[in-house]
Amino acid sequence: MNISQRVSPEFPIDENAIRIPYARLKDFMGQVFKATGLPDSDAEKLAQAMADGDLLGKDSHGCIRVPMYINRIKGGAINKTPNIRITKKTPAMALVDGDNGMGHLVARFSMELAMDMASENGISWVGLQHSNHAGAAAVYASMAIERDQIGIIACVGSANHAAPYGGSDILVGTNPIAVAIPTLEEPPVVIDMATTNSSLGKIMVKAMHNEPMPEGWVIDDNGTPITDSKLADDGILTHIGGAKGFGLSMVIGFLAGTLNGAAFGSDVVHIGEDPHTETNTGQFIMAIDVAHFMDPKNFKANVDRISKEMVNSAKLPGVDEIRMPGTNSFRVYNDRKANGIPITAPLLKRLNDAADEVNVPKLV
Amino acid sequence: MNISQRVSPEFPIDENAIRIPYARLKDFMGQVFKATGLPDSDAEKLAQAMADGDLLGKDSHGCIRVPMYINRIKGGAINKTPNIRITKKTPAMALVDGDNGMGHLVARFSMELAMDMASENGISWVGLQHSNHAGAAAVYASMAIERDQIGIIACVGSANHAAPYGGSDILVGTNPIAVAIPTLEEPPVVIDMATTNSSLGKIMVKAMHNEPMPEGWVIDDNGTPITDSKLADDGILTHIGGAKGFGLSMVIGFLAGTLNGAAFGSDVVHIGEDPHTETNTGQFIMAIDVAHFMDPKNFKANVDRISKEMVNSAKLPGVDEIRMPGTNSFRVYNDRKANGIPITAPLLKRLNDAADEVNVPKLV
Repeated sequence: MNISQRVSPEFPIDENAIRIPYARLKDFMGQVFKATGLPDSDAEKLAQAMADGDLLGKDSHGCIRVPMYINRIKGGAINKTPNIRITKKTPAMALVDGDNGMGHLVARFSMELAMDMASENGISWVGLQHSNHAGAAAVYASMAIERDQIGIIACVGSANHAAPYGGSDILVGTNPIAVAIPTLEEPPVVIDMATTNSSLGKIMVKAMHNEPMPEGWVIDDNGTPITDSKLADDGILTHIGGAKGFGLSMVIGFLAGTLNGAAFGSDVVHIGEDPHTETNTGQFIMAIDVAHFMDPKNFKANVDRISKEMVNSAKLPGVDEIRMPGTNSFRVYNDRKANGIPITAPLLKRLNDAADEVNVPKLV
Repeated sequence: MNISQRVSPEFPIDENAIRIPYARLKDFMGQVFKATGLPDSDAEKLAQAMADGDLLGKDSHGCIRVPMYINRIKGGAINKTPNIRITKKTPAMALVDGDNGMGHLVARFSMELAMDMASENGISWVGLQHSNHAGAAAVYASMAIERDQIGIIACVGSANHAAPYGGSDILVGTNPIAVAIPTLEEPPVVIDMATTNSSLGKIMVKAMHNEPMPEGWVIDDNGTPITDSKLADDGILTHIGGAKGFGLSMVIGFLAGTLNGAAFGSDVVHIGEDPHTETNTGQFIMAIDVAHFMDPKNFKANVDRISKEMVNSAKLPGVDEIRMPGTNSFRVYNDRKANGIPITAPLLKRLNDAADEVNVPKLV
């Protein structure tokens, strides 16, 4: 059993998955998106953000999304040549209009802006409007780490799959949040989580591999659990901690969506079902510059010390290992950087079909 | 059944609880803390923050804490005459040294600073160090609402009661977060939640009334559920969503504690058990000025519209009502403001014993 199998228990193990080097996967996706009509530099940035998601083990938010993005670009839902711009700026906050470009481009632009602003004044908040699905949130939050900053991004989910707590109408997205915190020698502390018990992406991965879902991820409109991952679209994703997760999700929706004049609630367009309509997706991004609070070396040493306390503490019966958030992903990253990104047979077929559709060479 | 019983299902119903007017409860607590040695104005501010917690229905974080705070003030753990001060300030962030004063005073000072800063530049982040337990987090977050701002506060829990996910060593606090979002006519959207399935305060309320806990709040070090609320101190509080809630808790700990040079992990002093040691409690506070993003009237109308969508949507079988986060608390607030704060017999005894201890007249 190789390391990526050991550390990614939530994804199906496939001994026959081929390993594609990061550079090759990135190049392949760049070609696909150039052929779909994106300018070269945008196609390359998009491909990098997607391949970075795969590298971090976010299998549900990386190359698996190629066909969906092609549909949306070809379907007219996406502006292929956006003028991503700052529409408001103070020393503490900014508003970015993504001009309906691919969300990866808008998020990267905004994270870079946030980091520059945080370098000046310690923290920054950037609100995004007219953005789109941006892939794996951890990719952007993690950009901050190299600059000894803490990165935060929260998003209105790009389709509603959950209901209000106690309800059955599909009005709420998975509204995820990612936070990345730098360390010295321990793996960076990174969360990247839907406020529901599962993201839709994780269910997509399971459905593609004919795997069932654990009980509790999805219920039907009688409250009965659904475990067939192919039927998840007919069900209701449940929130972590019930009313608490619903509360978190509402707050993220108002801060990432409503506050930026972006969609939330019934305004949200289902990106998997509607390839034609602009979504006006909202996100918010923060950067916190550690040096404005204390010597970053001290901060990172303290994060290391506390991380070690946690992972070296007593385990419940039957538990092999206590891990800090982000450690799994960090190990997958190192493995995939060295050995390539595992592509299962159904995923390869999706990618090669997509390549055929836009007339570029198959991945392999 | 009166309204406060209907809307607070998590607290024991006590038909015999007496109702004490807000002003009387506040005045009583002010006298107690003056007698304990706090300057008049600080004692009054502290009493107000505590009574405001009771008014909002945060029974676990209001007057119930009087005896514990007296112990800590008398035990030397608290600085009775702190010099609460700004030690660092940029247009976007500030650091506040609470000089080991009561957390309520430090949090209120910091929230006022945060709101003033947000009025100028749209958002602000204030890091607190050498603070203390501040009672109900929603009290401070809600201060922002009147100024058409969004208030956020997150805290390192003032005692460890949880373990890392998969572990049994008590190294993690409940690390709560509160967010308050203004509305036009709907109840304000407010979350105030521990990252564990229950706060310790809620368990204290249950223990005081000899009520059991639901299964899932607390486990023992074999992972077996504990439901006797009096035994909760020997158990491990569980996180919402398992690894996800643990991840949120770690992030809050690093941002509210470590980043401010405040305690987190094994450094945390158990405020219920140790009345002598300074805690160096950390919090972070944010304010977001809606007018910097859009016309506050439009924002609040949109929050209303989406709130109504949620509460008017289809209910799961057996569910009477869908509520937005904060609606329960808002109803309790209105009821208690009009009819007084219900004080159960065991709570009254606690408060009167405390009054005796510091030689002030009993509550009733």
